[in-house]
Amino acid sequence: MDAAADGGGALRPVVLDAMGGDHGPAVTVPGALAAHREHGVPVVLAGRADEVEHELRRHGGAGEVEVLHADEVVPMAERGAGAAARRKSSLMIGCEAARRRGGSFVSAGSTGAVVTCAVRAFARREGVLRPALAVALPTVTGSTVLVDAGGTSDPTPEMLAQFALLGTAYARNVLGVRDPSVGLLSIGAEPGKGNRLARGAARLLPDLPVRLHGNVEGHDVLAGTVDVVVTDGFTGNVVLKNIEGCVRSTLDMVARAGIAPPARLAEVARLYTADTHGGAALLGLTGTVVVAHGSSGPTAIARACAVAAELGEADEPLPVVGRASVGPVA
Amino acid sequence: MDAAADGGGALRPVVLDAMGGDHGPAVTVPGALAAHREHGVPVVLAGRADEVEHELRRHGGAGEVEVLHADEVVPMAERGAGAAARRKSSLMIGCEAARRRGGSFVSAGSTGAVVTCAVRAFARREGVLRPALAVALPTVTGSTVLVDAGGTSDPTPEMLAQFALLGTAYARNVLGVRDPSVGLLSIGAEPGKGNRLARGAARLLPDLPVRLHGNVEGHDVLAGTVDVVVTDGFTGNVVLKNIEGCVRSTLDMVARAGIAPPARLAEVARLYTADTHGGAALLGLTGTVVVAHGSSGPTAIARACAVAAELGEADEPLPVVGRASVGPVA
Repeated sequence: MDAAADGGGALRPVVLDAMGGDHGPAVTVPGALAAHREHGVPVVLAGRADEVEHELRRHGGAGEVEVLHADEVVPMAERGAGAAARRKSSLMIGCEAARRRGGSFVSAGSTGAVVTCAVRAFARREGVLRPALAVALPTVTGSTVLVDAGGTSDPTPEMLAQFALLGTAYARNVLGVRDPSVGLLSIGAEPGKGNRLARGAARLLPDLPVRLHGNVEGHDVLAGTVDVVVTDGFTGNVVLKNIEGCVRSTLDMVARAGIAPPARLAEVARLYTADTHGGAALLGLTGTVVVAHGSSGPTAIARACAVAAELGEADEPLPVVGRASVGPVA
Repeated sequence: MDAAADGGGALRPVVLDAMGGDHGPAVTVPGALAAHREHGVPVVLAGRADEVEHELRRHGGAGEVEVLHADEVVPMAERGAGAAARRKSSLMIGCEAARRRGGSFVSAGSTGAVVTCAVRAFARREGVLRPALAVALPTVTGSTVLVDAGGTSDPTPEMLAQFALLGTAYARNVLGVRDPSVGLLSIGAEPGKGNRLARGAARLLPDLPVRLHGNVEGHDVLAGTVDVVVTDGFTGNVVLKNIEGCVRSTLDMVARAGIAPPARLAEVARLYTADTHGGAALLGLTGTVVVAHGSSGPTAIARACAVAAELGEADEPLPVVGRASVGPVA
């Protein structure tokens, strides 16, 4: 076992749900080993010990990372309360171990299940009304943080405005943007445009300590217009999946036109896949939780563990939003 | 003047807002002439007579289409009530002429302004709770109708469910799909997934006379999973603009990778531009209204006029939704 992996070392552990994702331990175990070997992340694998240890041996990693036994598996189709009711699942046991050890948690399970279990296991940071999922999307010029990408489907305007604070801190701490600009996703540039929710948030945002650009529209998300795009979890999740589908369809049309070699197009596609953007971070809790894509391969799992370690090890803590909203963001 | 253009012929007129769009008469006039010459559409140009007639002469079309003088122009930035207050604008005068003559109306003005003026000039069809914008998007296998793409930002679940009826009739009458399948845009396949609005609509949809597929997600929009994607006007408008931006960004990345000739990539881009998809149709009113993209060129304007003529000339009228909801869709 790695000296750091038991939580006694200098680095805090990253607990990985070994049973999550479309492929379970066959993918999570090599992913955990890659995170440990290539990124130096002290990973703990939560899941069925026999299956996990079998995969560890298959990859020449027996005893290399800690294994935390958990009897149950939350099926990919199960979300919300049903998932949280399985107290002995790799998800709940993993989340709770991460909280106890002051570490981070990573799962490629269904977003709804991971969010529900994480909210049960961890507490919300002081002042945070609702957690939000943040995803860093590749743009032509760098990255844009989309928040909320599916954490809270029906936020109030106050919750939506807070997501700007969470996203700003994420862009600063994870992407290294010194003074991130923030755009509110809407359907017109003027502050009065949008649905009731967006208009309500637009009235609150100017009072928050963020660098407010104003409203942005659907075409701005990948254009790099702002560093942080703020929206509700419903719209954000639709947009995130729409981007995935749209990139695929566009490349498909290029391939059908026979104007570019498929192998080179696959490189472009990879920019937008789980293997590179490293998963969504659930912001606003007392612990760091990263949700990787269900179809993640070992590389994506390793990246998600590295992101979780970075988030957990950030020099400055994420701001407590209730306090941050009356003072500068940390 | 064309015999049909005064409304006395067999074809009902298509009134075109000559002042709308980013380029005004310089683009709408050649667009109107193309619609008339290539598609046989009896166009009426509403706008400043001197400017319009100047452009007609420039394109060798003096006296070829009717001109309806309108003093005022609604600026692209002006939307909603402000636009409707300009009673002598090409938008209001054009809408009213189209209604009086039982014809259709086309504008490349701002969507908000066109929707507001159209709702004032035309009545809602019996039983229709709110109008919705429909856009036919190119998919890998054909077309998908996205409805609502920006007509009603905050619909009730009842309004949202009705959009399925409007979209079904549009897919049948305009795209020629015999029995269109309908998907409700949400953030999970199960009917219980989504925000409050989507969950509410999901409960109503099974009772409507549409071929219901169930929920679809963001990646399904361009995948051709269903013929009609139903969503609220806020999410729909964000998705529509997100697709435009995403296609552009993806092709940009392909171009930067140097793996395809830019001219050939431009052909793929054109599939998704206003020049081909012919504008958004405002459904649910007693007249047909088509909103073309502000950046439309003459070809897009001509296509929008042809779509408006097709919608207006459809063999079967669009269903009165209140009645249709208790019987089969026409």
